[in-house]
Amino acid sequence: MSETAIIAGQGGLPVALAASLRERGKDFLVAELDGFPSAIPDGDPIRFRVERLVPFLDALADRGVRRVAFAGAIRRPALEPDLIDARSATLVPRLIGAFGSGDDALLREVIAIFEDFDFDVVGADTLAPELVPGAGILTGLPSEADRADAARAAEIVAELGRLDIGQGAVVAQGLCLAVETLPGTDAMLAFVAAHAGRLRPDPRGGRGVFYKAPKPGQDRRIDLPTLGPDTVREAAEAGLAGIVWEAGGAILLDRRQMQAEAEKRGLFLWARAR
Amino acid sequence: MSETAIIAGQGGLPVALAASLRERGKDFLVAELDGFPSAIPDGDPIRFRVERLVPFLDALADRGVRRVAFAGAIRRPALEPDLIDARSATLVPRLIGAFGSGDDALLREVIAIFEDFDFDVVGADTLAPELVPGAGILTGLPSEADRADAARAAEIVAELGRLDIGQGAVVAQGLCLAVETLPGTDAMLAFVAAHAGRLRPDPRGGRGVFYKAPKPGQDRRIDLPTLGPDTVREAAEAGLAGIVWEAGGAILLDRRQMQAEAEKRGLFLWARAR
Repeated sequence: MSETAIIAGQGGLPVALAASLRERGKDFLVAELDGFPSAIPDGDPIRFRVERLVPFLDALADRGVRRVAFAGAIRRPALEPDLIDARSATLVPRLIGAFGSGDDALLREVIAIFEDFDFDVVGADTLAPELVPGAGILTGLPSEADRADAARAAEIVAELGRLDIGQGAVVAQGLCLAVETLPGTDAMLAFVAAHAGRLRPDPRGGRGVFYKAPKPGQDRRIDLPTLGPDTVREAAEAGLAGIVWEAGGAILLDRRQMQAEAEKRGLFLWARAR
Repeated sequence: MSETAIIAGQGGLPVALAASLRERGKDFLVAELDGFPSAIPDGDPIRFRVERLVPFLDALADRGVRRVAFAGAIRRPALEPDLIDARSATLVPRLIGAFGSGDDALLREVIAIFEDFDFDVVGADTLAPELVPGAGILTGLPSEADRADAARAAEIVAELGRLDIGQGAVVAQGLCLAVETLPGTDAMLAFVAAHAGRLRPDPRGGRGVFYKAPKPGQDRRIDLPTLGPDTVREAAEAGLAGIVWEAGGAILLDRRQMQAEAEKRGLFLWARAR
């Protein structure tokens, strides 16, 4: 019997979460949406379909699951009406409505359904607090210019979040070099790397920071931004001085490796208090 | 004697402005900041230095100039203190203060100085109204999806303007694909072109629009956004359905050529009423 289930999607978060739980000897169960396998090694997952959501929820309860965490990206599956069972059919109107909305609205509705079935829905930070460090500098030392850039970036990202555009931005010498949009962090940092040479007015001035934060008022149980060793390498290639994120608002996928990369490349890592 | 002077910087706007005035037989004079030549052909420019601003303003007045328009980009020149004459020296504190601020603050101060010397500072739209078309569709036909994308983009760009980030964005199927930042429009559209394939959730849905508008409350005499034939080509390469801008809020550098390019590539051009 596993009290905890990870509803695992794509990307590094489910893997980091599973590794953290295993490291601490915590038992858990992995569930994956049919057709969207996670990268958790030896997860022995239960596969489920949205058309048979209620039988899946029953199966979780039968196996002793009381709390679930959603981790990793899942694309909207195409629903096959023939597969919908009678009990799941009662949920279809709720899901269809949510499918037509943004990702957040859909996930909020999915969370509400799990809660209606008496599951406790928790965030990655509840299952593995060490993945979400509190305020502090993990490595390196931000300059005064970096601190000013971080403050400006935080202001910009808060507004981008309110507009539901993205969760990150790059600011150097007070100027916004890039904003995270649908293509994501990797694309944005590659953009800065491509245009970095001519972008900074003062060649001796601050090299700039990449800042990341969840949306204001965002449910921390879904889609908390993640940072990993790749982010550090990409930020270094973009010529930045460091990476800053809202303390408690970002998941570090591999903290040790991130710190090692940052030290090697001379970047700072800073969980900034709001 | 020329009543009108173009303070001409880099880019296509001074060229378009001069061509428009010549086409209509209007006399004008070209002035260029020393070291920052414009691309106006046969402009026979007066060259000036910031260190000798007052003698330059006197020279303009002596030649009968009563109104000036700033057109094209000028980078901050390095001031050489030895060159500053006594009368211009009285303006140095104002300029030094403005040099330390953003581009807008600097230009506002420069405009104020010209006005203190009794020049009428006007926008490109005053000198050449046909460069700034009013509301209407110039070519093509936006779909309902395109109209919804334009509305969403207008909302985003207004907020980006308030944050002083940029003047443009790309929205497709309600999703923000890119935001204009310091690297400018070309870089943003190249970014969308590079990432366009996997960005649109519904392959049969709207291909998206590029939207451009001045900042809310922006002084229309400075830095009005410009669009040209290159913008149309780049928007086509980004796979977009059309280009939309705030009516009266963008300068078309070569309207005929833009329309020809748009028709050839199947894009619409739409000056959208606010």
